[in-house]
Amino acid sequence: MDTNNVDLPGERDIREAAARIAPYTHRTPVMTSQYFDSLVAGQVFFKCENFQKVGAFKFRGAANAVFSLSDEEAARGVATHSSGNHAQALALAARLRGTKAYIVMPSNAPRVKRQAVADYGAEIIDCEATVASRESTAEQVVADTGATFIHPYNDRRIIAGQGTAALELLDEVSGLDVILVPVGGGGLASGTAIAAAAVSPSTRVIAAEPAEADDAYRSLQSGRIEPSINPRTIADGLRTSLGELTFAALRRHVDSIVTVPEDAIRTAMRQVWERMKIIIEPSAAVPLAALLLGRIDTAGKRTGIILSGGNVDLNETLRLFGEG
Amino acid sequence: MDTNNVDLPGERDIREAAARIAPYTHRTPVMTSQYFDSLVAGQVFFKCENFQKVGAFKFRGAANAVFSLSDEEAARGVATHSSGNHAQALALAARLRGTKAYIVMPSNAPRVKRQAVADYGAEIIDCEATVASRESTAEQVVADTGATFIHPYNDRRIIAGQGTAALELLDEVSGLDVILVPVGGGGLASGTAIAAAAVSPSTRVIAAEPAEADDAYRSLQSGRIEPSINPRTIADGLRTSLGELTFAALRRHVDSIVTVPEDAIRTAMRQVWERMKIIIEPSAAVPLAALLLGRIDTAGKRTGIILSGGNVDLNETLRLFGEG
Repeated sequence: MDTNNVDLPGERDIREAAARIAPYTHRTPVMTSQYFDSLVAGQVFFKCENFQKVGAFKFRGAANAVFSLSDEEAARGVATHSSGNHAQALALAARLRGTKAYIVMPSNAPRVKRQAVADYGAEIIDCEATVASRESTAEQVVADTGATFIHPYNDRRIIAGQGTAALELLDEVSGLDVILVPVGGGGLASGTAIAAAAVSPSTRVIAAEPAEADDAYRSLQSGRIEPSINPRTIADGLRTSLGELTFAALRRHVDSIVTVPEDAIRTAMRQVWERMKIIIEPSAAVPLAALLLGRIDTAGKRTGIILSGGNVDLNETLRLFGEG
Repeated sequence: MDTNNVDLPGERDIREAAARIAPYTHRTPVMTSQYFDSLVAGQVFFKCENFQKVGAFKFRGAANAVFSLSDEEAARGVATHSSGNHAQALALAARLRGTKAYIVMPSNAPRVKRQAVADYGAEIIDCEATVASRESTAEQVVADTGATFIHPYNDRRIIAGQGTAALELLDEVSGLDVILVPVGGGGLASGTAIAAAAVSPSTRVIAAEPAEADDAYRSLQSGRIEPSINPRTIADGLRTSLGELTFAALRRHVDSIVTVPEDAIRTAMRQVWERMKIIIEPSAAVPLAALLLGRIDTAGKRTGIILSGGNVDLNETLRLFGEG
């Protein structure tokens, strides 16, 4: 697949996104941990997007997309399909803009996430838990309402918005050797890689992915988008496959992709809870899992990790830790 | 009981403690939450001692006590009895001072806390889970080793150290109407109340206590120390009873004590985990529980809460949530 002509957002788009969303987003803290520093014999800087509005980085992209709309577009609302954080993010962004969000969700989505979307005032439209059902249901919603469809990741505005987290991290922490991000659909990984390439070219960006949902890894190997078929990973935010834009961005700007097994994700997540006293979701633990497995050379280095979110169902997490 | 002549630490002791422990402690962040602000129709400022070294405010007092010792005293080590956070705190402080800590612990103390104490290099001496056994075992350790006994709360150095958290909070957040603290043995409540009275006399200090371990409430009512007999609260840090010093400090400087039922503690704790994405232990949730029950007038007010710690056994806690 020829990705050279794909029109990706650039540094200017990310900087404009940062200014656009600043009134609505948290500038999240960067935390450090002597425990993890000593484990990896280097310095690790955790960008805490679990403290972002709606509990995940996804709000950055959603806010950028919604506040990019013309008043006329905004008046007709926004629509998306999402099993989780993007849904909440778009719902809140729409409410802040004073417009309506139509969220197509699979009926098996976590209870806590469905409730949060409803609490933000969005209209939930149920679909089957398949890509085909999501997409056709969303198309119908757009046809019925005239709402603007905002894809969870394969969208220039979304990618630019997600890149603002790395912009803040690089602004606050100098001389990072590496930034690690989880990769699912690739919005965060793309935005991070574009931002780092522009602002700090010496910083490598490495994406981390569950071995059970290694579509991005396989896609970069084969040179075309290899979708995940019903991936079984606890990292529920990373079950999606790359889109054209994010595939092109990863090819161009990501150094490499590492994959990690499920038990390493669970262990890394639990260690963050116990040692840092913060709640992260399984997807957010994937980069740290790669670090703790020694898959990335961190000795004497300064490594940034974007902790992508903190939305978990506590009872489900109990079962998860109980299995460990 | 006449408490007028009890020699309490004062503002100067707390300021000296702050300077003494600054190289070893974290200046913990103050977090806010729009969710809780809207629930209480006011502003709430959370002083995050769950992010303190060893995961609890206890490290402040322990560090102050250990670094107050003469070199000669320090050479013989320190000793205490504690079921939890004070044990870890003293163990780490001793290690930083380069001396030995002897920790008397009941054999039923949480696994995670015993392990943490051992990891800090302290020597653990087992005792029965009774006050009498703790005290006699600790006395024997002191007699055998010449170590300095550091009581978990009934100690001027400890109280002064605990007061440094409020000092930081009052320095960072102006115009607080109220500060809420949990009360167990009363070290944190005493230090907080002394600090606030000196630095911000218009700030009321209210202590919150589990109804199942309401010894401080009953003690202030009756005018003498009323011990808790085998209290059954999930707030394991608050099962201890007041000492002479802390009783005197509470009488003199605390505005009032409110008590809260167990289910409110569990609910408040869970809400902090879910909404703020931070891990707090049950004891730390007690003041917020009082707030959420409407026991304290917060409408239009600025309320500080000291989140005392974040040390939990995850499996036990997740079971707790499962029961709720």
